[in-house]
Amino acid sequence: MLSVNVALGNRSYPIYVGAGLLDRADLVSPHLRSGRVVVVTNDVVAPLYLDRLERALRGAGATATAIVLPDGEAHKDWLTLNRIFDGLLTGLADRGTTLMALGGGVIGDMTGFAAATYQRGVPYIQVPTTVLAQVDSSVGGKTAINHPLGKNMIGAFHQPRLVLADTATLNTLPERELRAGLAEIIKYGLIRDADFLVWLEANVAALLARDQVALTYAIERSCRNKAAIVEADETEQGERALLNLGHTFGHAIETGLGYGKWLHGEAVAAGMMMAADLSRRLGWLADDDADRVRRLLQRAGLPVVGPNLGAGRYVEFMRHDKKVANGQLRLILLKGLGQAVLSAAASDAEIRATIDQCCSHG
Amino acid sequence: MLSVNVALGNRSYPIYVGAGLLDRADLVSPHLRSGRVVVVTNDVVAPLYLDRLERALRGAGATATAIVLPDGEAHKDWLTLNRIFDGLLTGLADRGTTLMALGGGVIGDMTGFAAATYQRGVPYIQVPTTVLAQVDSSVGGKTAINHPLGKNMIGAFHQPRLVLADTATLNTLPERELRAGLAEIIKYGLIRDADFLVWLEANVAALLARDQVALTYAIERSCRNKAAIVEADETEQGERALLNLGHTFGHAIETGLGYGKWLHGEAVAAGMMMAADLSRRLGWLADDDADRVRRLLQRAGLPVVGPNLGAGRYVEFMRHDKKVANGQLRLILLKGLGQAVLSAAASDAEIRATIDQCCSHG
Repeated sequence: MLSVNVALGNRSYPIYVGAGLLDRADLVSPHLRSGRVVVVTNDVVAPLYLDRLERALRGAGATATAIVLPDGEAHKDWLTLNRIFDGLLTGLADRGTTLMALGGGVIGDMTGFAAATYQRGVPYIQVPTTVLAQVDSSVGGKTAINHPLGKNMIGAFHQPRLVLADTATLNTLPERELRAGLAEIIKYGLIRDADFLVWLEANVAALLARDQVALTYAIERSCRNKAAIVEADETEQGERALLNLGHTFGHAIETGLGYGKWLHGEAVAAGMMMAADLSRRLGWLADDDADRVRRLLQRAGLPVVGPNLGAGRYVEFMRHDKKVANGQLRLILLKGLGQAVLSAAASDAEIRATIDQCCSHG
Repeated sequence: MLSVNVALGNRSYPIYVGAGLLDRADLVSPHLRSGRVVVVTNDVVAPLYLDRLERALRGAGATATAIVLPDGEAHKDWLTLNRIFDGLLTGLADRGTTLMALGGGVIGDMTGFAAATYQRGVPYIQVPTTVLAQVDSSVGGKTAINHPLGKNMIGAFHQPRLVLADTATLNTLPERELRAGLAEIIKYGLIRDADFLVWLEANVAALLARDQVALTYAIERSCRNKAAIVEADETEQGERALLNLGHTFGHAIETGLGYGKWLHGEAVAAGMMMAADLSRRLGWLADDDADRVRRLLQRAGLPVVGPNLGAGRYVEFMRHDKKVANGQLRLILLKGLGQAVLSAAASDAEIRATIDQCCSHG
């Protein structure tokens, strides 16, 4: 088992990463305010892991009850969130009750937002069961639900008390979601950790084979990188924007195709390739380095070419991204491998040239 | 004009109190992140004050648009909150936009919660137009909406950038709401400011006559008292509970009669009288002091006797109050005038004796 401490003053918390942590309620006990826990999960994860988690909690002397929501991003809305509130209010959960999110990013975001706002804030613990949730949404305290007019538009910053990332739960993750999760892992190498990139080039096959030692190391190192960024910029005023490498291009892909057609990580992979290509055009990245990015993404089974939406629509969708400030299109680009920067240096013509280069023309 | 600085580190903010501040957009300008302001108000306050506020903002170079909600506590729900989100998302408000709450406690709580959660937090400014909102809900950063199963159950702590309390707006406040607001002002004297209590005994008539100098002083001193408590305990772990003097009894009155029958301040007034009577039974408060509480409340036109719900139902409703910890009934009582304490010292028999004494038997 590896661990990361996210140092945020009196909101600091540990992340434990390893195989079999679902049974380790002894790691949970020190972080409970009272013995009452409400586990929030979905109808796909519950049959796989809920019993085991509840048994472990009971073994540690806690009272565990569960709220099981329907699976899927389509349910990341107020209506489903309200099912959590209904459960808490009819079960008479008080301010000492701890919520525990067992599932992927949707469950984590919704449970976190419920914890942020139920009685103006109760503690919560993340037990992420996807690669994406283990390296991304469970670190940093971002919580949200979708609004019909925009994704993640309603939310809060609310740090968990503890993250328990059991890599063995990834054995039941669909292959496509595993690959999509690797995109976010590769992202940490690209934005700030060139050494990790070298390690990934040597271990991508082990990760795809779900080797538990490799997964534990990659997830811990990703969390460590994300923690360093979040510690420097908890509420996303500056450096935290670097985490969005590939996300503005990716946002255009997801919006252009309709959400859900490509997985988030797939869109981010193609988006990171576009960011690398644009950085190459600006003379910041060597041709060889851009090729290294392409090869690593391909070996992880990820797309390096976006869908053919037309450059005009790409630019239009990119301008609607949440990260646009005062109407100016700023992108996360690479000054080198492991050196991301937020920049408005790319001209419209250069952005269009990259899109033409990095999209299918079928 | 008087002012109070609420000292909360990097969440500190000023409260300005005085007649005619609605026109003083020069006080607002320094606190805007960009020139974009969205004013949230209701259909009762809008015809009275919206034009003036918007004119002042435009005069100071800001772009002001308005969202007008239906008036009343019945609309303090998710559906109405969503009208704020709809307005923000269709008007393309970005993270630099400042929300401004123009109205009473319901508008302040809802706008504050919208600001706390829109894109995970945007700045907001309070322009409270009731006594209750000026001395209570605009200070301390508590925001919330109601849930069908409980009042203020969904919310967040989110501090405003500025509070602009225009005492002249109180000239249009219904008489009964003015009196109810005085209950909260008297509360500050009772819990921690015996000198203020003496001032109130000498000036209650001037307050009822809406004397602007007296109102400005009483509101500023109330805010100063509340600010001191909030500074010591921003997220209600301890001392802040003292602000609930009279509220547990009052909660029973409001629940027992059905919300809206008595105004919140009226229920709190009768509740404070019960807390004073119970403190007298415990030997903490002299008979004369309990009489002073009764006379001051009566002169403010406030009830000092609760409705006849029966002692059993009072106790039952009190046990459902949010402030109950681990099932134990703790009450805010008085060790003397100006000295409130959180205590579990009162026995069930003593509580019932107080209820019998302080309720109508008609």
